[in-house]
Amino acid sequence: MTLKYKYMEKLKFAVAGLGRIGKIHLENLLQINTIEVVAVMDPMEESRKYAFEKGVPYITSTYEEMFSFTDFDAIVICSPTDTHANYVEFAAKAGKHIFCEKPLDLSLKRVLEVLDVVKDTGVKLMLGFNRRFDKEFKKIQELVKDGEIGNPHLVKITSRDPGAPPVSYIKQSGGLFLDMTIHDFDMARFVVNKEIEEVYAKGAVLIDPEIGKAGDIDTAVITLTYTDGTMAIIDNSREAVYGYDQRIEVFGSKGMAQSNNNFHDTHKLYTHQGIQSSLPLHFFLERYAEAYKSELLEYLDSLQNNTAIPVNGEDGLQSLKIGLAALKSIQENRPVKLSEIN
Amino acid sequence: MTLKYKYMEKLKFAVAGLGRIGKIHLENLLQINTIEVVAVMDPMEESRKYAFEKGVPYITSTYEEMFSFTDFDAIVICSPTDTHANYVEFAAKAGKHIFCEKPLDLSLKRVLEVLDVVKDTGVKLMLGFNRRFDKEFKKIQELVKDGEIGNPHLVKITSRDPGAPPVSYIKQSGGLFLDMTIHDFDMARFVVNKEIEEVYAKGAVLIDPEIGKAGDIDTAVITLTYTDGTMAIIDNSREAVYGYDQRIEVFGSKGMAQSNNNFHDTHKLYTHQGIQSSLPLHFFLERYAEAYKSELLEYLDSLQNNTAIPVNGEDGLQSLKIGLAALKSIQENRPVKLSEIN
Amino acid sequence: MTLKYKYMEKLKFAVAGLGRIGKIHLENLLQINTIEVVAVMDPMEESRKYAFEKGVPYITSTYEEMFSFTDFDAIVICSPTDTHANYVEFAAKAGKHIFCEKPLDLSLKRVLEVLDVVKDTGVKLMLGFNRRFDKEFKKIQELVKDGEIGNPHLVKITSRDPGAPPVSYIKQSGGLFLDMTIHDFDMARFVVNKEIEEVYAKGAVLIDPEIGKAGDIDTAVITLTYTDGTMAIIDNSREAVYGYDQRIEVFGSKGMAQSNNNFHDTHKLYTHQGIQSSLPLHFFLERYAEAYKSELLEYLDSLQNNTAIPVNGEDGLQSLKIGLAALKSIQENRPVKLSEIN
Amino acid sequence: MTLKYKYMEKLKFAVAGLGRIGKIHLENLLQINTIEVVAVMDPMEESRKYAFEKGVPYITSTYEEMFSFTDFDAIVICSPTDTHANYVEFAAKAGKHIFCEKPLDLSLKRVLEVLDVVKDTGVKLMLGFNRRFDKEFKKIQELVKDGEIGNPHLVKITSRDPGAPPVSYIKQSGGLFLDMTIHDFDMARFVVNKEIEEVYAKGAVLIDPEIGKAGDIDTAVITLTYTDGTMAIIDNSREAVYGYDQRIEVFGSKGMAQSNNNFHDTHKLYTHQGIQSSLPLHFFLERYAEAYKSELLEYLDSLQNNTAIPVNGEDGLQSLKIGLAALKSIQENRPVKLSEIN
Repeated sequence: MTLKYKYMEKLKFAVAGLGRIGKIHLENLLQINTIEVVAVMDPMEESRKYAFEKGVPYITSTYEEMFSFTDFDAIVICSPTDTHANYVEFAAKAGKHIFCEKPLDLSLKRVLEVLDVVKDTGVKLMLGFNRRFDKEFKKIQELVKDGEIGNPHLVKITSRDPGAPPVSYIKQSGGLFLDMTIHDFDMARFVVNKEIEEVYAKGAVLIDPEIGKAGDIDTAVITLTYTDGTMAIIDNSREAVYGYDQRIEVFGSKGMAQSNNNFHDTHKLYTHQGIQSSLPLHFFLERYAEAYKSELLEYLDSLQNNTAIPVNGEDGLQSLKIGLAALKSIQENRPVKLSEIN
Repeated sequence: MTLKYKYMEKLKFAVAGLGRIGKIHLENLLQINTIEVVAVMDPMEESRKYAFEKGVPYITSTYEEMFSFTDFDAIVICSPTDTHANYVEFAAKAGKHIFCEKPLDLSLKRVLEVLDVVKDTGVKLMLGFNRRFDKEFKKIQELVKDGEIGNPHLVKITSRDPGAPPVSYIKQSGGLFLDMTIHDFDMARFVVNKEIEEVYAKGAVLIDPEIGKAGDIDTAVITLTYTDGTMAIIDNSREAVYGYDQRIEVFGSKGMAQSNNNFHDTHKLYTHQGIQSSLPLHFFLERYAEAYKSELLEYLDSLQNNTAIPVNGEDGLQSLKIGLAALKSIQENRPVKLSEIN
Repeated sequence: MTLKYKYMEKLKFAVAGLGRIGKIHLENLLQINTIEVVAVMDPMEESRKYAFEKGVPYITSTYEEMFSFTDFDAIVICSPTDTHANYVEFAAKAGKHIFCEKPLDLSLKRVLEVLDVVKDTGVKLMLGFNRRFDKEFKKIQELVKDGEIGNPHLVKITSRDPGAPPVSYIKQSGGLFLDMTIHDFDMARFVVNKEIEEVYAKGAVLIDPEIGKAGDIDTAVITLTYTDGTMAIIDNSREAVYGYDQRIEVFGSKGMAQSNNNFHDTHKLYTHQGIQSSLPLHFFLERYAEAYKSELLEYLDSLQNNTAIPVNGEDGLQSLKIGLAALKSIQENRPVKLSEIN
Repeated sequence: MTLKYKYMEKLKFAVAGLGRIGKIHLENLLQINTIEVVAVMDPMEESRKYAFEKGVPYITSTYEEMFSFTDFDAIVICSPTDTHANYVEFAAKAGKHIFCEKPLDLSLKRVLEVLDVVKDTGVKLMLGFNRRFDKEFKKIQELVKDGEIGNPHLVKITSRDPGAPPVSYIKQSGGLFLDMTIHDFDMARFVVNKEIEEVYAKGAVLIDPEIGKAGDIDTAVITLTYTDGTMAIIDNSREAVYGYDQRIEVFGSKGMAQSNNNFHDTHKLYTHQGIQSSLPLHFFLERYAEAYKSELLEYLDSLQNNTAIPVNGEDGLQSLKIGLAALKSIQENRPVKLSEIN
């Protein structure tokens, strides 16, 4: 047999940071036939070894070094949050398209600077708000968009983690609102395609006093008011002992759309004591495994077909503003307008 | 055959007001073997005819007249809200035990006066917060009480009516919070056996502008903070086109307890278009049919066995205060402490 | 006040037999405004006392004596199975309409005789196949009738009791097929409005060897073939430890309609161990409480408006034939045609 | 950077046949780090091109030629059914371990011959009964094995395809029982770890008369009796318009374990017309995507750790015998013992 087929021209990708999320993105990128991963950067040897075994050709330990391999088109940034702004700026100036994990930065000022650079360079920046690509949330957003529930009146988002991260992590995370709820803020905008005008947040330390000592909360209820006067409610907890709780409900003039958690399986065990069934999938790696694939594919589509980026810098900016307003609200125990955040 | 059995001594009941709820209470009272309904009062001839056909022996059109038939032990008051305070006072002074539909009155001052009279006379007053007796809510309250979810962190109550009442009704109802949400305020206290400290309410007119013109809202989100810093969220709508939406969820340190609506039936119809199932029961008459029976039976139990009254005047008072705080919160767009309401 | 309203002319009912089912029927009859219960018969003093306390005017211990009170129009027969045939015959000859609990008799010959008498006298005989009036089964039957699933191909009926009756009862019951499955045979005909041509039954003694010694089985699987070649499957057990299991599914060319059990409540308790929910209602008294009311109301409607009887003698006859065919099938381990049963 | 890591020693795999299932297996094999796919064979150029693009190093169009590349350890056979027996024999004699799609052959005699060869050569043969590796069925099997439902009394399997295959396929498929139900026969043995003694099958042509003309049926109900007298029921249809219907239920002395279909998503849309939800996943490629991965991993585990093969030749043999008994049963309309099949 003769090898008569030829490889197609493929987009070249680099990946910066091979932590938990970085590994997921790398593995997903490696499955996509129309691209190739040409470079990976991580300061940890273990992570570089991992990339090597996956067959990535160029592997490095510093960000800048990776750019000396000039032949890539886009970069996926999954390094720690405090590197995001600099890395995005650097990549944008190098003319690379960028997929960056959220958030861009915890400082509004710095985010605005970075977005300016991105705008100037014209590269395509996408932020990793993965839940938008989850089939459950997507379906609800589509039903709303298609008018199936009429005019949306109320959005309800339940978002609870299966367990709190280490306090060391919490200290540098920006706090519950910027670390965890920021996904829900993005969802609140996405699912009904409306902007937020006002935020009222109420929080408490109910799970671990150490979280309180670190200046954060572990439980929260947030009321968002959209610019049209309709409302969203978010409830958060750092510890749902039964697993990752990710539900949404949109209520409107013609009906309601709901989605539920994803469970390990559908089994029901009936005994004389009751009916037992399976728990929700444990955490985001399990629940959003497919969403992580889809978000890369949609980003790729926007690169290859020059279509709109599914989650752009403005989306990151808005979520950050809502988060900062929530912080202010809880500090002052009063509703805060987004216009107060500058 | 000889009639050798003898009727037991039975508690004698009167019923004031035979509207929709009054008729339900009357029919339920007539099923209970250990009591007898001896008198009914309603100003409408149609209602009196209804009572006659049910076999009630004494039927009258005025409240005071009914008391000239001295031989009853307890009265069920289902007349319009603005008669409640006077009727309760009158009955209490006549030494009758009283089951009164909520609310006692829309004025905090008047409620306090009436409760003083009740206290002085020593009669047993129960308020008709029927949802406490619904098997769904009861079950959740029991699970919480039994420690199945550990310490409660968050309570979520969804309460939506299938359609708005006439604007004429709304005008004299005391508004959404005192007319409709008051049940949810009571539930928020009942389900976790905790008191409320602060209220933040946000509302909108999204269903019918006429409701807005009448000075009321038709959609609301209320955040309650308990005295221990934990929180409850209530969401209300006057019009859920799919039927009466009555759900609760309590989240705690060891788990979560949820209850769902009650549906017409369990059928599922699978076609190539999707799976169709039945809607929630239409409204309170259907959903709470059994609860209306249970609340009377429990009241009866407290009369016959001299046990604590399931829902007493203090419960009515607290719900009213929360409602008034919610009103103030929405007017001033700020969280309001219950201690501000006097 | 003057008593100016007049009682309407009401149908007069008698009840024979005040066992578990008889008491249910009596209580339900007493709720219906358009009839009155004028007589009750039961050989047990306890049952007669029960009727007395319910206010039934004439109470007797023998069947014939009751007929000397000539002023009733219809009789509800809930006495033991071996009295049904004689009691129906006697009532029919006395010109009374008859509601009789199933089965008419365990002997095909006797059933045919009785049905002849009923036919000759022209009285309206209804059989108590209560499940036809359950909202779940009714809904499935309506969906099928309305063509929602196209042409029915397969019917699946699950019917399991929460516990086996005493062996003494089993011995005189006619066996699993005539005592318990007979309801499912009726349902198989009712839900798709088709007749059975062939039966194949397979059974086992898996719960209690004493049931086997009594010549019966406690677990069974029955395949029914309709005259058009489509099929039904029934599975039975005398002991489902989790409660009364009553489900149906009809599969057809355009879809499938399913109904589920009715549960104590809808609660779900999420803990780290799993999700726990409530069991099915315990047994027929709980599950079919509403169905018992509906069947009487529908019978009444057929009497008052001279419409078709919902479950007539022919229905009883067919179920009996299917039961006898199932018995023959299990004895000979082969499919048996209904035409073989004479 | 120096490439200092070394590839581990990996098991080498070949794949014969790159149809729908072959492609799935190839893609899954390519994801497994501990093996490598060294050769692929398919007579179609399109399929070979597919393999080339996946990076398979050796690609050929004939089975024998592939074996001249001596360096593989195991082969996955996904070619048409009528090649299975010969291919397995050939591979076994060449000392290769074999994963073969079901069935080995439609002829009992031929299967016995091939299994003899496999036994003589000592290679590890696994059959592709993929459903055993589906998380739903696995969970039920584990619950049963762990005694959660006590002694199993009844197994109920619903297995319906979303649409009938072309009649041309049906003609050479061995018919419904050997083509489709054979999976259910395997499941009936697997889920309770018991052997079948007797089969009674009833079938009909209800979907497409052409299927009948081809000598096959499209709808069936099969009653299986295990050697201990307990029973299983299978119901099949070639066309469930709502999608692939794959459910199981095991009822026993201490309870019941059920699993449901897998659905596109969990959304519920409430409108005034009812509640709409998503359909089951369309067909086996979607429903069993994960199961196809798991079965290869479990086979690999048995190769690498020399543990028992999850589904061996005897399992294939038993399912075939049950299928042949079902065929005989339907032809003779009587229950057929497995001992009659030789």
